[in-house]
Amino acid sequence: MAGDKTASDKGGAWRVPDLLATKMQGGNFSEDQVAFLIQKVTDGSMDDCQLGALLVAIKVRGMNSQEVVALTRCMRDSGRVLEWPQEWRTVDKHSTGGVGDKVSLSLVPALAALGLHVPMISGRGLEHTGGTLDKLESIPGYRVALTEQEMRAALGQAGCCIVGQTSNITPADKRMYAARDITSTVNSLPLIVSSIISKKAAGGMKALVLDVKYGDSAFMKTVEEARTLAKAMVEVSGGLGIKTTALVTEMNNPIGKAVGNALEVVESLQCLRGEGPADLRELVVHLGGELVAAAGVAGSAEEGQRAVERVLNDGSALASFRKMLVMQGVSEEVAAELCGEKPNYSKLPRASSITPVNAATTGVITKLHAMSLAQVCQKLGAGRERTGDSINLAVGIVLKKSVGERVAAGEVWADIHHDGPLAMTLLAKVAGAVVIEDKNAFPTPSRIAARIS
Amino acid sequence: MAGDKTASDKGGAWRVPDLLATKMQGGNFSEDQVAFLIQKVTDGSMDDCQLGALLVAIKVRGMNSQEVVALTRCMRDSGRVLEWPQEWRTVDKHSTGGVGDKVSLSLVPALAALGLHVPMISGRGLEHTGGTLDKLESIPGYRVALTEQEMRAALGQAGCCIVGQTSNITPADKRMYAARDITSTVNSLPLIVSSIISKKAAGGMKALVLDVKYGDSAFMKTVEEARTLAKAMVEVSGGLGIKTTALVTEMNNPIGKAVGNALEVVESLQCLRGEGPADLRELVVHLGGELVAAAGVAGSAEEGQRAVERVLNDGSALASFRKMLVMQGVSEEVAAELCGEKPNYSKLPRASSITPVNAATTGVITKLHAMSLAQVCQKLGAGRERTGDSINLAVGIVLKKSVGERVAAGEVWADIHHDGPLAMTLLAKVAGAVVIEDKNAFPTPSRIAARIS
Repeated sequence: MAGDKTASDKGGAWRVPDLLATKMQGGNFSEDQVAFLIQKVTDGSMDDCQLGALLVAIKVRGMNSQEVVALTRCMRDSGRVLEWPQEWRTVDKHSTGGVGDKVSLSLVPALAALGLHVPMISGRGLEHTGGTLDKLESIPGYRVALTEQEMRAALGQAGCCIVGQTSNITPADKRMYAARDITSTVNSLPLIVSSIISKKAAGGMKALVLDVKYGDSAFMKTVEEARTLAKAMVEVSGGLGIKTTALVTEMNNPIGKAVGNALEVVESLQCLRGEGPADLRELVVHLGGELVAAAGVAGSAEEGQRAVERVLNDGSALASFRKMLVMQGVSEEVAAELCGEKPNYSKLPRASSITPVNAATTGVITKLHAMSLAQVCQKLGAGRERTGDSINLAVGIVLKKSVGERVAAGEVWADIHHDGPLAMTLLAKVAGAVVIEDKNAFPTPSRIAARIS
Repeated sequence: MAGDKTASDKGGAWRVPDLLATKMQGGNFSEDQVAFLIQKVTDGSMDDCQLGALLVAIKVRGMNSQEVVALTRCMRDSGRVLEWPQEWRTVDKHSTGGVGDKVSLSLVPALAALGLHVPMISGRGLEHTGGTLDKLESIPGYRVALTEQEMRAALGQAGCCIVGQTSNITPADKRMYAARDITSTVNSLPLIVSSIISKKAAGGMKALVLDVKYGDSAFMKTVEEARTLAKAMVEVSGGLGIKTTALVTEMNNPIGKAVGNALEVVESLQCLRGEGPADLRELVVHLGGELVAAAGVAGSAEEGQRAVERVLNDGSALASFRKMLVMQGVSEEVAAELCGEKPNYSKLPRASSITPVNAATTGVITKLHAMSLAQVCQKLGAGRERTGDSINLAVGIVLKKSVGERVAAGEVWADIHHDGPLAMTLLAKVAGAVVIEDKNAFPTPSRIAARIS
C-alpha cells in the first residue's frame, strides 16, 4: 500500500508510518528522510503517538553516524541558529552535568580574556545537578534572558555572555525532549547526542569542548560509557563542522569545595583570582586549553593550558567576568564588590544558619559521596525536583577538607548552610557521605581520565 | 530513580515510563501491569506519546501468551461486556476479511435455526474488504444500530442478530487501533489477536469459530502466517474461556460469484435456499459445523456440518433470516419478498448498467484475482477508502463462471454492475483478473487448508 502513495515524489514526501516501519525493521533513514521527520516534529504535523513511536524505534534499533549527524543538523536548523562576525573565534563548552560543577563561571571569562568569544547558552539545574544559570542568578541584578542583540553587545564588550536558551532555539528538541522524558527514551545514545549537540550548535560556535563525566554522581556510571558518549558527540559535532574535543572526567566527589548556588559563585571568583581548589582549576585549565588550541590562539592544548593559567593568575579573566556581569545587568557597584581587589560577598544571598559536620574518626578522606551531598542540597532548597520550581540560592554545603586530606576525629570537615531548622536526617546523610580511612594523605587526584578528539 | 517511586505500592501503581523500559528491554508484563496500562489507555491518562511508544515496544519485542491473554481480557473489560441468559448457547464467528465474503449472512441464521443464539457484532468494509453491515444495509429498512435491549429481543425472537459495534464496547481497542493505524503497528501478532478477540469476547459468546484467510487478497499472504495467527487467536480466545476453533481458508479467488453489497445479499439468499456456489456453502457448512459441535448440539464437527446442511436445505435457516430481518427493522413485506417461495429482489438497490466481460481465449478458468476485482468494485463505489465514506450498495461484479469451469473465447464470464459510465481502465482491470488455461475442467477446489483447535 505504501508504494502507491507519495514515496517516489521528488523532495521527499514520505509517509510517517512507512518511516516508522523502516526503523522498527532496523533500517536506516536517509538525510532527506530525517529532514522530513524533524520538519513534521517541528511544525506539529507529526502526531504525538507517532513521536513516541519514533523515539522508541530509535532507542531500540539505534542510528548510524550519518543518521545522527543528519538528525542533529536538522534539530539545530529547526529554529534560530545564531550567527556571529566571521572574524570572531567563537567557542563553547558543554558539561554532561555534575555536582559542584561551576567550571563555566571561571572558564568562560578566562577564554574571553584570551581574545576568544564565548556565547554560552546554559541551563538550569534539575534533580541533583546544579545549573549555571541558577548560580549566576544568585548575583543581584544578573539577567540570564538576553536578546540576540544584547548577547552581541555583551560579546563585543566583555567577549562572553552566559545566557538562557531563547525560545526559538531548537524547537524540535524541546518537543522531543518532553516526549523522551515520559517514554523512557532519555537514555538513548543517538537521542542524547543529537539533543546536546543540536542545542550547542545553534549557538553558532566554531569550536567546542565537552566535559563528559562518569561516576556515581554522573549520568554515565563508568569511564567506558562516558568514553562512548564522548566519541559519539565529538564525531557528530565534528560532522557539523565544529572543531570538537572531549575530556572524560571523574564525577564521584564534588568539584571543588562548594555545593550550592551563591556558595559556588564565591568559589568561582576564587578560581578567577588564581586561587581555589586544585580540581576546579584543573578542569578550567584543561577544558580551556583545548579551546584555546582549537581556536588557533595556542599551538597545542598544553600551550593553551598555560595561557588559561596565565589569565587566571594575572586578573584578566576576573576582569572579563566583571565586564560580563555588568553587560548582563549587574550594577557596577556589585560587580566591583565581587571582583575588586578586596572582594566583598555580602551582596550574595546568605543562609541564616551554618551547622558544622564533625569527623567521626581520624584519618584521610578517601571519598566524598557527591550524590548524597547534592541530594541534601536539593532538600535544603538548592535544587529543583521539577522544571519551574523556585529554589533557595543561599543554601548548600561547603567542604572544609578535600579528598586526600587528613582529618582528626571531631574536626569539622563540612559546613551545612541552611535556612530554618536542619532535619536530623539531612545532617546524618551528610555525615554518611564521607569515607575516612587510615592511610597517608595524598594530593588531589586528577579528574581527567581520557581525551577524545 | 524508579525504585523509590511507587513500584512497590500495593494494587499496582507503576509508572508508565518504567513499564515502557521493561518492554523495550524485552521483559514481560505481569497481569497487573497489563491491567494498569490498559486502564490508563482507557481513562485517557496515558499520553499519546506513551501509547505510540508502547505499541512500538510491543511490536518490536513481542508478548508471550500470558501477556496476550491478559491484554485481551483487559481490553475486553475496558468497556461493556454483553451478558446473555445462562441457558443460551451463544456462539459467534469472526473472519479476518475477504472478497465476496458473505458467509455470515447465511451462517448466522443457519445456527439460529439449530437452536443456537448468535449475537454477532460485525464491521464495515474498509479498503478492498467488504463489510457484513454494508451488505445488510442494502436491504431497505435494515438497522445495524440496535440497543442491547433490541439485540436481546431479536435473539429471543429470531435466535440471531447482526449489528454494529456499540460505542461502549472495548474503548481501549478503539484508541489503540487509531494509534496503530498511524504508527505502523497494525501488523503485530499480539496487537492483532488482542484487538480481534477482545471485541468478539465483549459480545459475551460461549463458543467462537475463526475464519483465518490466507492468499493474495487476504491480510496473511501464506498458509503459514495464517496458521500462526489462527493458533494465537485460538489460544487467547480459549484463555478467556471461550471454546474456539479456527479454519485456515484460501482467499485468492473471490468467495462465491458475487462481489458488491446488494449482489452478495442475493447470493446469500440463494445459499439459504440450499442453492448458490459450492465454495460459499462449503465455508458456511464447515464453519457452522464447528460451532454446532462446540455448543454441544452435535457430537462432532462433521455431525455439525450435516446439521447445517439440513437447515440450509429445509428452509429453516431462511426462516430465521427472515425473522432476523424483521426484528432489525425490515418490513414484513420486504422480508417476505426476499425470503418467500418465489423470491423477488426488486426492492434491493440495482445498478443502472451492466457491462459484460468476454473471455479472450477458450479454456478453463484457473484463477480469478480477487484483489483486482475488489479494487474495481471499490472504484465503482462499493467500498470505502476511509472510515465514514458513503458507498454505492448496488454496484459490483457477478461472475458467470467459477474457477475450474470451461469458458469459450468471446463468452461472457463476468458482468460489471455500475452506475454511470464505466472507465475503460476498470474494464481492462477486470479483464486482466482472469487466468484461462488450456486444461481440463475441474470441480471447485476446497478452500479449507487447516483446522486449528
